[in-house]
Amino acid sequence: MTTPRRDTYTPETLLSVAVAVFNERGYDGTSMEHLSKAAGISKSSIYHHIAGKEELLRRAVSRALDGLFAILDEDGATRGKALARVEYVTRRMVEVLTAELPYVTLLLRVRGNTRTERWAMERRREFDQRVAELLGAAASEGDLRTDVEARLATRLVFGMVNSLVEWYRPDAPGGYDLKQVADAVVRLAFDGLRAPGPPA
Amino acid sequence: MTTPRRDTYTPETLLSVAVAVFNERGYDGTSMEHLSKAAGISKSSIYHHIAGKEELLRRAVSRALDGLFAILDEDGATRGKALARVEYVTRRMVEVLTAELPYVTLLLRVRGNTRTERWAMERRREFDQRVAELLGAAASEGDLRTDVEARLATRLVFGMVNSLVEWYRPDAPGGYDLKQVADAVVRLAFDGLRAPGPPA
Repeated sequence: MTTPRRDTYTPETLLSVAVAVFNERGYDGTSMEHLSKAAGISKSSIYHHIAGKEELLRRAVSRALDGLFAILDEDGATRGKALARVEYVTRRMVEVLTAELPYVTLLLRVRGNTRTERWAMERRREFDQRVAELLGAAASEGDLRTDVEARLATRLVFGMVNSLVEWYRPDAPGGYDLKQVADAVVRLAFDGLRAPGPPA
Repeated sequence: MTTPRRDTYTPETLLSVAVAVFNERGYDGTSMEHLSKAAGISKSSIYHHIAGKEELLRRAVSRALDGLFAILDEDGATRGKALARVEYVTRRMVEVLTAELPYVTLLLRVRGNTRTERWAMERRREFDQRVAELLGAAASEGDLRTDVEARLATRLVFGMVNSLVEWYRPDAPGGYDLKQVADAVVRLAFDGLRAPGPPA
């Protein structure tokens, strides 16, 4: 078994270091100096790989966004009744969020001070909009309750899913496994916490 | 009708300016200089009111925490079946969050770098724990589904409620009113989005 050497940097490893620093210090608060120290390589070596920190931001949020948008093309998101599709998408959002945790965390914290940040926020809104449309379709098919407006429901479901970045750590000892969390999110969002009542 | 004058600062008005600056710049990123500029008064005038920025933080997060903990002493939170109590607490959390939006926003963003921040996080955990206990009691009374673990359910409900600070603005034109949002949160959390099915 070989141990990766620190001086054999690839754009991919640099990206993963940069995302960790962005998440810790905030994107605005991160300088090339910080990145250079965290990566253990010189600034000029970093510039060998990328044009500047905004390129790292773009690559990082692209990775999160690509993961999320890919969900919408999967069979489970495109075939069948809208309710089943939106349940599928909700579950997959939890899975992608977990698999790409630092990248999605960064995406959710982006604040719109640079062109790349504004682009990322715009793409996030597009994704939210696609999910809102699915919820709207499920409502039209009569499968969603009518007393929670679809756009508001979307906000709340995203709020619940996105809040996972604040505390969920897949490798935490004694923590929840991914399936347990994904099941809980889908059950809570679509069926609620109340015990099923006796037949009416 | 009299217009409040800027130079008649009270601890209360100073607090509200400070909270806005903390939320915009982050607590760590805020200096007394920033507070002085935002308040339009000299630093020495600020020190006339308070010992330093940590005192402002303590007062601000105390206001949020006092609002939240007060819920737990209300009749709706102490009488009746646990499920009704936890539904009541959930609705009131949305109301307090909205009424004290900048203060709760600050509380949720606190990161634990100072003693006051760590104290605030500890109090937040106590509050979460109290709500988790209520959910546990509702489960023991057979009123909650058994396939979503109580602690995980608490996390998800808090995730949904707390996410309101990211987008909900009570005064936004064309926005949702408080009752609409509180109803939606309680319906989603306890009954889910799925339309009630035909009787089994």
